[in-house]
Amino acid sequence: MKRILIINGPNLNLLGKREPNIYGSTTLYDVETSVKKKFPNVQIEFYQSNVEGELINAIQQGMSGAFDGIVLNAGGYTHTSVAVRDAVAALKIPVIEVHISNVYAREEFRKQSLIAPVCQGSIVGLGAKGYELAVEALVENAS
Amino acid sequence: MKRILIINGPNLNLLGKREPNIYGSTTLYDVETSVKKKFPNVQIEFYQSNVEGELINAIQQGMSGAFDGIVLNAGGYTHTSVAVRDAVAALKIPVIEVHISNVYAREEFRKQSLIAPVCQGSIVGLGAKGYELAVEALVENAS
Amino acid sequence: MKRILIINGPNLNLLGKREPNIYGSTTLYDVETSVKKKFPNVQIEFYQSNVEGELINAIQQGMSGAFDGIVLNAGGYTHTSVAVRDAVAALKIPVIEVHISNVYAREEFRKQSLIAPVCQGSIVGLGAKGYELAVEALVENAS
Amino acid sequence: MKRILIINGPNLNLLGKREPNIYGSTTLYDVETSVKKKFPNVQIEFYQSNVEGELINAIQQGMSGAFDGIVLNAGGYTHTSVAVRDAVAALKIPVIEVHISNVYAREEFRKQSLIAPVCQGSIVGLGAKGYELAVEALVENAS
Amino acid sequence: MKRILIINGPNLNLLGKREPNIYGSTTLYDVETSVKKKFPNVQIEFYQSNVEGELINAIQQGMSGAFDGIVLNAGGYTHTSVAVRDAVAALKIPVIEVHISNVYAREEFRKQSLIAPVCQGSIVGLGAKGYELAVEALVENAS
Amino acid sequence: MKRILIINGPNLNLLGKREPNIYGSTTLYDVETSVKKKFPNVQIEFYQSNVEGELINAIQQGMSGAFDGIVLNAGGYTHTSVAVRDAVAALKIPVIEVHISNVYAREEFRKQSLIAPVCQGSIVGLGAKGYELAVEALVENAS
Amino acid sequence: MKRILIINGPNLNLLGKREPNIYGSTTLYDVETSVKKKFPNVQIEFYQSNVEGELINAIQQGMSGAFDGIVLNAGGYTHTSVAVRDAVAALKIPVIEVHISNVYAREEFRKQSLIAPVCQGSIVGLGAKGYELAVEALVENAS
Amino acid sequence: MKRILIINGPNLNLLGKREPNIYGSTTLYDVETSVKKKFPNVQIEFYQSNVEGELINAIQQGMSGAFDGIVLNAGGYTHTSVAVRDAVAALKIPVIEVHISNVYAREEFRKQSLIAPVCQGSIVGLGAKGYELAVEALVENAS
Amino acid sequence: MKRILIINGPNLNLLGKREPNIYGSTTLYDVETSVKKKFPNVQIEFYQSNVEGELINAIQQGMSGAFDGIVLNAGGYTHTSVAVRDAVAALKIPVIEVHISNVYAREEFRKQSLIAPVCQGSIVGLGAKGYELAVEALVENAS
Amino acid sequence: MKRILIINGPNLNLLGKREPNIYGSTTLYDVETSVKKKFPNVQIEFYQSNVEGELINAIQQGMSGAFDGIVLNAGGYTHTSVAVRDAVAALKIPVIEVHISNVYAREEFRKQSLIAPVCQGSIVGLGAKGYELAVEALVENAS
Amino acid sequence: MKRILIINGPNLNLLGKREPNIYGSTTLYDVETSVKKKFPNVQIEFYQSNVEGELINAIQQGMSGAFDGIVLNAGGYTHTSVAVRDAVAALKIPVIEVHISNVYAREEFRKQSLIAPVCQGSIVGLGAKGYELAVEALVENAS
Amino acid sequence: MKRILIINGPNLNLLGKREPNIYGSTTLYDVETSVKKKFPNVQIEFYQSNVEGELINAIQQGMSGAFDGIVLNAGGYTHTSVAVRDAVAALKIPVIEVHISNVYAREEFRKQSLIAPVCQGSIVGLGAKGYELAVEALVENAS
Repeated sequence: MKRILIINGPNLNLLGKREPNIYGSTTLYDVETSVKKKFPNVQIEFYQSNVEGELINAIQQGMSGAFDGIVLNAGGYTHTSVAVRDAVAALKIPVIEVHISNVYAREEFRKQSLIAPVCQGSIVGLGAKGYELAVEALVENAS
Repeated sequence: MKRILIINGPNLNLLGKREPNIYGSTTLYDVETSVKKKFPNVQIEFYQSNVEGELINAIQQGMSGAFDGIVLNAGGYTHTSVAVRDAVAALKIPVIEVHISNVYAREEFRKQSLIAPVCQGSIVGLGAKGYELAVEALVENAS
Repeated sequence: MKRILIINGPNLNLLGKREPNIYGSTTLYDVETSVKKKFPNVQIEFYQSNVEGELINAIQQGMSGAFDGIVLNAGGYTHTSVAVRDAVAALKIPVIEVHISNVYAREEFRKQSLIAPVCQGSIVGLGAKGYELAVEALVENAS
Repeated sequence: MKRILIINGPNLNLLGKREPNIYGSTTLYDVETSVKKKFPNVQIEFYQSNVEGELINAIQQGMSGAFDGIVLNAGGYTHTSVAVRDAVAALKIPVIEVHISNVYAREEFRKQSLIAPVCQGSIVGLGAKGYELAVEALVENAS
Repeated sequence: MKRILIINGPNLNLLGKREPNIYGSTTLYDVETSVKKKFPNVQIEFYQSNVEGELINAIQQGMSGAFDGIVLNAGGYTHTSVAVRDAVAALKIPVIEVHISNVYAREEFRKQSLIAPVCQGSIVGLGAKGYELAVEALVENAS
Repeated sequence: MKRILIINGPNLNLLGKREPNIYGSTTLYDVETSVKKKFPNVQIEFYQSNVEGELINAIQQGMSGAFDGIVLNAGGYTHTSVAVRDAVAALKIPVIEVHISNVYAREEFRKQSLIAPVCQGSIVGLGAKGYELAVEALVENAS
Repeated sequence: MKRILIINGPNLNLLGKREPNIYGSTTLYDVETSVKKKFPNVQIEFYQSNVEGELINAIQQGMSGAFDGIVLNAGGYTHTSVAVRDAVAALKIPVIEVHISNVYAREEFRKQSLIAPVCQGSIVGLGAKGYELAVEALVENAS
Repeated sequence: MKRILIINGPNLNLLGKREPNIYGSTTLYDVETSVKKKFPNVQIEFYQSNVEGELINAIQQGMSGAFDGIVLNAGGYTHTSVAVRDAVAALKIPVIEVHISNVYAREEFRKQSLIAPVCQGSIVGLGAKGYELAVEALVENAS
Repeated sequence: MKRILIINGPNLNLLGKREPNIYGSTTLYDVETSVKKKFPNVQIEFYQSNVEGELINAIQQGMSGAFDGIVLNAGGYTHTSVAVRDAVAALKIPVIEVHISNVYAREEFRKQSLIAPVCQGSIVGLGAKGYELAVEALVENAS
Repeated sequence: MKRILIINGPNLNLLGKREPNIYGSTTLYDVETSVKKKFPNVQIEFYQSNVEGELINAIQQGMSGAFDGIVLNAGGYTHTSVAVRDAVAALKIPVIEVHISNVYAREEFRKQSLIAPVCQGSIVGLGAKGYELAVEALVENAS
Repeated sequence: MKRILIINGPNLNLLGKREPNIYGSTTLYDVETSVKKKFPNVQIEFYQSNVEGELINAIQQGMSGAFDGIVLNAGGYTHTSVAVRDAVAALKIPVIEVHISNVYAREEFRKQSLIAPVCQGSIVGLGAKGYELAVEALVENAS
Repeated sequence: MKRILIINGPNLNLLGKREPNIYGSTTLYDVETSVKKKFPNVQIEFYQSNVEGELINAIQQGMSGAFDGIVLNAGGYTHTSVAVRDAVAALKIPVIEVHISNVYAREEFRKQSLIAPVCQGSIVGLGAKGYELAVEALVENAS
């Protein structure tokens, strides 16, 4: 049975309440529920924090052998955090970056991802659906 | 029955033969076969050209009502073609950008996509699998 | 009798159907008809292509002595094509650049024209009317 | 009867005397005479000043209802004046920017116009003829 | 017997007629004739097109085993085409870049070659003679 | 009765002790005391943390209906934190940015504020007095 | 009794009439009236001009001993005028910069203030209220 | 007898009173007196204004035949005024740029002179002495 | 007896396990042990955290008089954290920056250190040995 | 009989011993021997120095009439030396730039050549063979 | 017995006499004496030159087998010399870069070291003490 | 009696022979003769070298007390040499920079002088006359 860790960064706890024209009205809890329902045979763990260092702690769990892959939506830290990048680069399991909105169609500073180059790949702008697609890609890889 | 057009740009006809350490050994024909097999209930059309203007002609078919969505891998034109971008922007149906390799982990000039801001979203770095994920996202949208 | 060649680049075949809030609802055929009607004593030829190299072929006709001037709307190639620029620079007859929308009031990448420095002048943002003004300027020059 | 205000900025009072290889030998008075002669049914007012603030005062007349459009050649202030730009942006009537020489084929610092994005359009590099074309475009708009 | 393919890009069909102060009065046919005469024991094929995608098609012939090396003058595409670069990078046989004029002594945008980094080397500014030197280098390599 | 939350970021707990030539000798506690004294009819809450994520938690309290406005001095995170910016952008109540020193007269990297564009306004360089002026502006707005 | 000079630059004479969605409907006369009413014990002088040099003349009055401080809204000159900056730098009395709109949330070229580094501080985006807050800060300083 | 016009721009009327650590304690009147005394056989005229357009008017006097050369200290306009540059470029008599302080050793924005490229030469950082050296160079040229 | 605080930032808890080709196989505990052994007469305290704000808290201990110097390896925050920089700048005791790998020979974004300019000095690329050299320099300073 | 001077700059005395994966195992003496053997009817002189000024002295010999052309590999000075560039620009005989490795495929700072714009042309990345090709081009020119 | 070569570049012969507020009053001879005294069992050679090419000659001695490591303070050439960098890159023995002052806390152009990326590491800002620390690191490496 | 050292850098030995349209036909010897003739009561020493380090040696003579001032034309090193700059900065006697041509009206890379900020001032574009003016300024200073 595959084990996937899904990590969400700053302000994603507001999903569904914050700028719904950009992020939609689905909450993070809804996302968690529907992803788990879609993959009944995958063991999925959800984590969210606003604190950069706690996210690093979470990513470092990927070194323990407890997971087969990570889905990471680092929110605003995507564009500024060398420290989060370094944590990802330290892992041997695949990490897929997800963004709900199309960050490449927004402000200039959202167009650079420090994290993308050390991930296996990215899924951007496909809404909450992106989490499902990422899990699917990880499960298939891990088969 | 959904109808999806998958457009591939310059040098993708070499897939499987060209720089396999980056692009893998799957050919474009393999991709076409496996995508069609995976979605037996979707009508999928494949197109490839090395010529920028012919790709624009293909994208403009999206105005005819003949398709419900487009998957576009514009290859090297992704980073330089305002004309391809304008063709995409003219459409009312959704377009999803796909790249086989993780373009954000390669040369500097591959990090800017002129096309991403006018697409619905992007799937990057997940290999040939990215085409399947894109079709899945379009089908669901189009339901 | 003066002879003028009017060349239109990528996506201008969609004029009137594409993003009408930016480009208006006049079609390219309407433009052709009304320009010809306004200048009954000028021999005017219209050409459109989405393919960069075919536009270069068309511009190179300006070396044959068959035309007294060219009106060029290079569309999206305006901002990226050194090759189109070189074709214009090779001519001895005057070329006037036309853009329907005010490209200087849109995205950053539309603010640089590689073609403007080798033209006699530019007419920008005056809608389809710009074609008439360009022909008028060429005819007067050519008297 | 249409009323058009034509505003000329710094050093245009030297037209015909200054660098004739670039600007030609027509004087500003010649331009005024020939524009008025060409449009006998349009009420045309000419203004010139070397002082940035006086040009702003002139542009602000466009708020009074006394004019149907403005033709503006802001000379050297084109490239540096946010204040002139703001004055144009405050107007509700159309403003067309004119430059006698092809500013895009000259020094680097002449390639950026702060004023173009808030005008209806620009006519560049067509000599004194550009004033006539601009008036023609405004009159047609205003019909 | 060595086999060399010489590919010429946009506007090189005008060689000898276009801006002779920069490019000289030798035509492309003269170049072909004199290169073939100089290397009677090498099988040399000449190709020219203004269309970016057709040049890519020509470069892709280098994968077929039919040639031992390519001489490429990509003209204006040299500075803008990621797609041409990708086609070159896909080859296993050596490619040498040639420019007739000294592109480093001309406009700023001609100073960057996207193609040079994936070629074996470059010969620049030595006129039509550059084609001969490139063939000589390829033949020696291929011995 | 109006309720205002005043949030202070990293190193502001050192106020009065740290680089007094730049920041003065008033402590953060002094600021709190004097602001509360000046506005006896406003309910004011003070918060300080060095941790980026805890500041985001504090800003997110602005979604609860418990406050009518926020005064935010994000210290060093002002110039680097997309995550703090996103938290501010998620709010519907007004936020005013305050800086004690004139950040525009200091190092280059302090001249860009990622936070300013999503605030209602900024008060910069007026010392601890800036907090009082910000509260005054919020109270008046909120009336 | 404190004496404050409030200087307003180009286009601020249009306040209330110009782009009211950005600048509000209060006129400059309204601002003057309400600031004077709020500070009956301060001697306040208002000045406005569209001419850069006249604003410099006004700022130079700050050397005469006639004023205890200056409030300066330099409008469009804020971003381009080294000469206004030099005039401010020559003074020994404090100058506070005011902007009615949040210039940091608008066009790119409005984000740099040449004047801010030589002022005591800035108040930005708080509407006409910003003038009152600036006077309050100067009066307190001057006590 | 040679005739020289010496033009001084914004804030130079404050010379001797403004930032004496940078500009010294000599007043502009002292400069005028000592230059005239040093060159009793040269007819020297002094002019100062803070208004950009009035400086342009003064420079345009150089077209009248009334002067053999101009010494120009354009102050803060040196770095921002295309319009002053154009006025200088229109002249046929030599213009020498003078700056009292070493502008190249000060802020970044003072390091670019728009005016220097159209002058005969520049004298920078030699204090009020620079005016004398400039007159000497012009007189010698004019012999 | 000298007292030195050694602070380690994000991901340094993984030392020895993470990318050993870059960072070697020594663990942070090994470093601590060997530094303490080498300096038996210095009181050395080790601290590590992944959380930016907690590192700031640790650095602020340098204001308490409890330490004579700090050795700081801020990891990925080195390149992005103005807040950490401000904490260092607030101290009166010397801080020496240490990096285990040669950050100048790696990715572009690792070449800028925001922290270096406010430290006494830096030791880079000498492996775990760098910690010993830094302590030696601090002890000598403090003598 | 043609006379050619071949000048080699810093570190080229190490050729064959230094980084052979980049520069090959041929020594500079081997190059000299084989070039002279290939052109028995050309008088060829070799010079190498690590000192920038001595290279300038060598290049200045090109003014004496003793040589018909120069082949210059300026090594690391290629990218930084305005002084070497000026020496080349002073010559009337042709200079061809040679680089053994493909400098365009290496570090960013090797991509700009200050010398290329003042040479007749460049030959790059063709190994020691490049010297022969350069001599051949010079001899033919000089005929 | 280990053998270390210490190379000092331009102006370091002035150490102790030049700008003592930045560089201290220790002379280079003092440094040499104290380093040799501290490491009686290491054979240390000192070299200084102002000439770039002579420094390259000195560095090239590191290819002879005569030394186990080099300490290099390249002074002003650190920031500009590709040629010195290439000489270092050619060596197989370790090189450690030393700077007496904290170059990162000084002018902008001192912040980039071309040499650092090809050294084993750097020691910056620790005064003459830096030379001792570098020798210690080399000796340990070489053990 | 004043003693002045005049130092000339690379390629100035070619003065009069090199690019006379830019530098005139006066030789360096003519300059020396006429400067000495003009100032019979000043002891003037001339020095020229193409070698950067020898120029530094010459500048360092300014520390010996043997000279009252230096006139420095560093030629092409002006724009690239931090080492020459450091040598000038080490002096206590005044140094005046001279350039014969107007370097600010030439190529982009000649517009930055690393040396100007540490000199007392600069004289640019006044031909060989500039040396005389510089000596005059130094003599007057030194009185």
